[in-house]
Amino acid sequence: MSDRTAIGVGMVGYAFMGRVHSQAWRSVGAFFDLPLAPRMAVLAGRSKERTEAAAAQLGWAAAETDWRELVNRDDVQIVDICTPGDSHAEIAIAALAAGKHVICEKPLANTVAEAEAMVRAAASAPGKSMVAFNYRRVPAVALARRYVEEGRIGEIRHVRAQYLQDWIVDPEFPLVWRLQKDKAGAGALGDIGSHIVDAAEFITGQHVVGVSALTETFIKERPLAAESAGLGATGTSATGTVTVDDAALFIGRLSGGALASFEATRFAYGRKNAMRIEINGSLGSLSFDFEAMNELWFSAGGGGFERILVTEPEHPYMDAWWPPGHGLGYEHTFTHEIKDFLEAIATGADPTPSFADGLRVQRVLAAVEQSAADGSRYTNVED
Amino acid sequence: MSDRTAIGVGMVGYAFMGRVHSQAWRSVGAFFDLPLAPRMAVLAGRSKERTEAAAAQLGWAAAETDWRELVNRDDVQIVDICTPGDSHAEIAIAALAAGKHVICEKPLANTVAEAEAMVRAAASAPGKSMVAFNYRRVPAVALARRYVEEGRIGEIRHVRAQYLQDWIVDPEFPLVWRLQKDKAGAGALGDIGSHIVDAAEFITGQHVVGVSALTETFIKERPLAAESAGLGATGTSATGTVTVDDAALFIGRLSGGALASFEATRFAYGRKNAMRIEINGSLGSLSFDFEAMNELWFSAGGGGFERILVTEPEHPYMDAWWPPGHGLGYEHTFTHEIKDFLEAIATGADPTPSFADGLRVQRVLAAVEQSAADGSRYTNVED
Amino acid sequence: MSDRTAIGVGMVGYAFMGRVHSQAWRSVGAFFDLPLAPRMAVLAGRSKERTEAAAAQLGWAAAETDWRELVNRDDVQIVDICTPGDSHAEIAIAALAAGKHVICEKPLANTVAEAEAMVRAAASAPGKSMVAFNYRRVPAVALARRYVEEGRIGEIRHVRAQYLQDWIVDPEFPLVWRLQKDKAGAGALGDIGSHIVDAAEFITGQHVVGVSALTETFIKERPLAAESAGLGATGTSATGTVTVDDAALFIGRLSGGALASFEATRFAYGRKNAMRIEINGSLGSLSFDFEAMNELWFSAGGGGFERILVTEPEHPYMDAWWPPGHGLGYEHTFTHEIKDFLEAIATGADPTPSFADGLRVQRVLAAVEQSAADGSRYTNVED
Amino acid sequence: MSDRTAIGVGMVGYAFMGRVHSQAWRSVGAFFDLPLAPRMAVLAGRSKERTEAAAAQLGWAAAETDWRELVNRDDVQIVDICTPGDSHAEIAIAALAAGKHVICEKPLANTVAEAEAMVRAAASAPGKSMVAFNYRRVPAVALARRYVEEGRIGEIRHVRAQYLQDWIVDPEFPLVWRLQKDKAGAGALGDIGSHIVDAAEFITGQHVVGVSALTETFIKERPLAAESAGLGATGTSATGTVTVDDAALFIGRLSGGALASFEATRFAYGRKNAMRIEINGSLGSLSFDFEAMNELWFSAGGGGFERILVTEPEHPYMDAWWPPGHGLGYEHTFTHEIKDFLEAIATGADPTPSFADGLRVQRVLAAVEQSAADGSRYTNVED
Repeated sequence: MSDRTAIGVGMVGYAFMGRVHSQAWRSVGAFFDLPLAPRMAVLAGRSKERTEAAAAQLGWAAAETDWRELVNRDDVQIVDICTPGDSHAEIAIAALAAGKHVICEKPLANTVAEAEAMVRAAASAPGKSMVAFNYRRVPAVALARRYVEEGRIGEIRHVRAQYLQDWIVDPEFPLVWRLQKDKAGAGALGDIGSHIVDAAEFITGQHVVGVSALTETFIKERPLAAESAGLGATGTSATGTVTVDDAALFIGRLSGGALASFEATRFAYGRKNAMRIEINGSLGSLSFDFEAMNELWFSAGGGGFERILVTEPEHPYMDAWWPPGHGLGYEHTFTHEIKDFLEAIATGADPTPSFADGLRVQRVLAAVEQSAADGSRYTNVED
Repeated sequence: MSDRTAIGVGMVGYAFMGRVHSQAWRSVGAFFDLPLAPRMAVLAGRSKERTEAAAAQLGWAAAETDWRELVNRDDVQIVDICTPGDSHAEIAIAALAAGKHVICEKPLANTVAEAEAMVRAAASAPGKSMVAFNYRRVPAVALARRYVEEGRIGEIRHVRAQYLQDWIVDPEFPLVWRLQKDKAGAGALGDIGSHIVDAAEFITGQHVVGVSALTETFIKERPLAAESAGLGATGTSATGTVTVDDAALFIGRLSGGALASFEATRFAYGRKNAMRIEINGSLGSLSFDFEAMNELWFSAGGGGFERILVTEPEHPYMDAWWPPGHGLGYEHTFTHEIKDFLEAIATGADPTPSFADGLRVQRVLAAVEQSAADGSRYTNVED
Repeated sequence: MSDRTAIGVGMVGYAFMGRVHSQAWRSVGAFFDLPLAPRMAVLAGRSKERTEAAAAQLGWAAAETDWRELVNRDDVQIVDICTPGDSHAEIAIAALAAGKHVICEKPLANTVAEAEAMVRAAASAPGKSMVAFNYRRVPAVALARRYVEEGRIGEIRHVRAQYLQDWIVDPEFPLVWRLQKDKAGAGALGDIGSHIVDAAEFITGQHVVGVSALTETFIKERPLAAESAGLGATGTSATGTVTVDDAALFIGRLSGGALASFEATRFAYGRKNAMRIEINGSLGSLSFDFEAMNELWFSAGGGGFERILVTEPEHPYMDAWWPPGHGLGYEHTFTHEIKDFLEAIATGADPTPSFADGLRVQRVLAAVEQSAADGSRYTNVED
Repeated sequence: MSDRTAIGVGMVGYAFMGRVHSQAWRSVGAFFDLPLAPRMAVLAGRSKERTEAAAAQLGWAAAETDWRELVNRDDVQIVDICTPGDSHAEIAIAALAAGKHVICEKPLANTVAEAEAMVRAAASAPGKSMVAFNYRRVPAVALARRYVEEGRIGEIRHVRAQYLQDWIVDPEFPLVWRLQKDKAGAGALGDIGSHIVDAAEFITGQHVVGVSALTETFIKERPLAAESAGLGATGTSATGTVTVDDAALFIGRLSGGALASFEATRFAYGRKNAMRIEINGSLGSLSFDFEAMNELWFSAGGGGFERILVTEPEHPYMDAWWPPGHGLGYEHTFTHEIKDFLEAIATGADPTPSFADGLRVQRVLAAVEQSAADGSRYTNVED
């Protein structure tokens, strides 16, 4: 390992996504034989004090309070963007312009226009770019893709995808940034709907070509979060308007002719992170639920579904880990993502999902919003 | 039991539905303390020989080759219609006109117009009428309804219903009557989609008020069935056109404001009779899958889902059966249906689901077909 | 069907077992093409009034208050014994002596001596005899046996069998006959432990050759049941001693070299009728739980377990029933049992499980009791 | 974090256990607010080259080829023992004598005598000591313990524990060290049986007081592993004798009166790491299977089992991790273990499981072996 080339990483943002990305950067080299040795150079955040504390805890060598400084540091070759969607485009474009490689959290941007600008920037920049749809790196999801590629389920007829959560069922849950359109771009649709669109496209190798949609905001006013209200931890009685969807349902067609249904909601009480996808083909079927992330269910030729515990060395990514039956957790999807990203950088390959893949997901989300606004009319996804 | 009033039953049709109805008529009195003792008087079918053999095997005292004779027999007070949908209206209307009680297999009819005529006939007739959406009588489904009525899941936000089968994935599967529009009215939509629409309305106590839909016929030509081709068991190379949908997907809204998604397909390889429904409310959730028909899953307040084995004496219908843990099967949904029908007749109550309930389902199916034909536009369900 | 030979049946006892046997006798001919047409001739019980009411409800043509009368009636060719274990031997031996065929509920008897007498009687009588271990006729269990016979799991290494119930966890549950040694012979061991011993022997085709055991009675005094106390429904404060085991655990060896573990208990809170068996072999494994009775789980070559929905026409007994995915219930195990018994009578074959099979189970239970009494010492099962 | 006291760690062994311990040492500080900051000072192994490579990959600052050097280094305050069981006692006793804190992989030792010596050494040494039964730190297992402590399942009647694997079903699998008594002490019994004994004692808070056992070695001769045979990767036709058990079954009693059954095997084809435990009490039941490690199943009052997704912030250890529904993996049990160990060191508390707990498990294993050798006679566990 001592003779691997070091590569400096700068990360912007240290909330949920920043914490899990940090763990991936910290761990990836201990499990995978990598051509590049990531060095956790610098973390950027707005508050000096908090950013420095986060850097210390998460293992970053330095802290910056301006992402522009980070993007231009000589000891940074990779910029990892873990901020809300409203700043993705600006940071990514600046980082690419500075010659850096960029990995950007999903959804790629809050608007199609921003995403298009990012794709253009990526196309003309020397650095590699990747959008962090981490669920592609669940070993069971990657195995599903492998089975489809090998033709084991034949021609695909149905995709049935859901992403069900329940963290805002309580009307007293506050108006956090994810419920504000200017910050988050969209609600359940953008945050979790984007994941199942990407997963459906990844596993099937097809594109969503048109959709018909319904969206809904069940709770229209919520208490302001303490921070938004300019208050301390004691809260406030002021309320604000939820400006994003609470749930989005859409049905559509894939480029290969399959019918697909999608549902993203934060109001499925009892479902915590049920990112689920089932695919039915002419030769077999596959089924996955992230709440049991180490399992892939496979039916061949109409037989019963086999529960494959995706922990065998021949399963994607799994030769790096533990003996069969010793499962992985959520964080390892990021470890795999960063491993693949580093390998792409080292070999000069284009990492996937690319910014263009992220843009395509964005266009599906835009078509969903347009259809929902337009009486659920079937709406083609822009090419 | 000896002092119960006997009531004569005549059944039309002796295929799949006829067999299971017969078992219910034969068994119901041994388990439920009924006010009326059904007498299996007569079975009608087209072929004399086959009808007589079926009557002997299934326990009917006599056989008729013309349903009109059956409908007018003095020893028949109840007419049970187990034929394909294209003859429901004619038989039911005649039976009602003859003063009989009528229980009719689902879907109520092949067209809204026929269903409307049936509802009119039922409204003015002395006899009771019922449409046989048997899944309402799965104890777990009835328990789900009870939980909703008791307010245990609160205000309903989501309904997620699927009916997945796989019996026609093989393109060599022949063009049976269920794949012909003139006989069956519709394909997966009418046959199994109708069940999940009814179940959603039953459990929630709400109506589907509008839908946006996609339908598809994956295999457009199929070998003629031996019988249709005028041939013996050796088959034929002739093919015919599938004139119904193979799959139907629709999303919509319920009268109480919930979002709903429905999928009916015969192309979900590995799913045999997966009639599934999940309902998420403001206080809890319920989930059911007919492939594990003795289980209802219930989450209270966002907690984990409890697997309720619906075999306790306090569960719907279950005090008539076995000790806890000794589950029921498909046939018992019919036993329960007939028990409820007989009780309604005896007490003068109106049995449910009524023909009007069946008509409402028919109108949902019609709205689905119209939406699918009209670019998936959101289509209101006729009142 | 009209030309089938009728065969008269007399049943002794009309409680839980009598009710489910009646349903089987009533239904079997409608589903299976039988060489013999059972006629439900006569039911015997102690109370004239209750027996007549039961006969009327369950469909028996006549009632007797003395089983000896029943056994000697000319219109009875089959005697079906559904009484507690203390009367099995006497009734069965008398019925065999009278030239009748006998089907007897399990366990075969309350003692090995009684069971031996029954086997001797069966050996010298013209009638056929069968002990009613109905779980052999769960289609999934029969399929497990078929897989073992076909060599699909190879040489058997492990059997892991449990029968878990919870109906006497409450210390206020009364001292019913099943908790009294003179009536029931044993507790959980005899009632449900016998089923898993039989199932293990049936599926593996091997015998239990020795055991080491622990038994326990957790609640040693219980309220007398109203009936036992000579009281009405209002109960009593008198208590009596539980004279049977509440739970029995034993480990042992099979004739083919496998290790086996067995557990029978009525104190597994939340488990209602969890009759479970898992078998691991050199080529694969099988797993079954009666609480999901339509499923068999099969692992080939160490791969994931496939959930086989045992509802396909090629599965045991299933071509008589419904389309795939339309499951069976508890009662159908009895329908299958009686179908097989009638076929054996008609063809002159020896039905299984035979009285000798029942005796062998009895000897295993006796070895369990002896081992438990003898410091869990490994105790050979008598040949 | 910068003001935390650093504490140096030296680890012996870098195979499976060493790899996962390393990841825990590396990660623990990023998730838990610890009073001590572990410094990964030195790794010891036999081969200089391999140890140095492992140290580089796993993040240890230095390498030693003699564990005695490691144990005496000034920059080491904690010794982490990840070697096979035959060296545990020697290393642990030396480390304790050198004033170090010691965490030792399970089973504590290969013999009761060694374990006793370790307990004596621990009792008189200033350092803290802990045996690494990591399954106690599965959040679902810790939650089960909490439920028992809170009285939620009442008085315990049954423990049903299994640890099922399948990695040596193939008779061609070589004679690795885990199959040699001199290295491993025991087979499935010591390696995985020890885990379920510890888990049963931990969750119930009771001790195993006596056992009756059967053990078996199904495959008695195996190919020598390439290394053992003094050969390269091409293998060998030489075989050697398996000197440990392949499977161990035992039943027994707990100090509180419960009945318990245990099974440890490496021959359960299709079960990869099925470490399972179910506990039935007078008020409820708990059930766990490591193959779905983020789930705990709980039945209250005989109701259905609730699937608790153990990912809520109020669940043990889970406030340090991700939002609900984002599960953990195998490695995190070690992170939790080390977090608890560091906290015990900092506060002066005695960490659990202690060496005395490890000794008690060892004595259970010894009683199992003695019973198995002695006709399965019930054998008291030494106090």
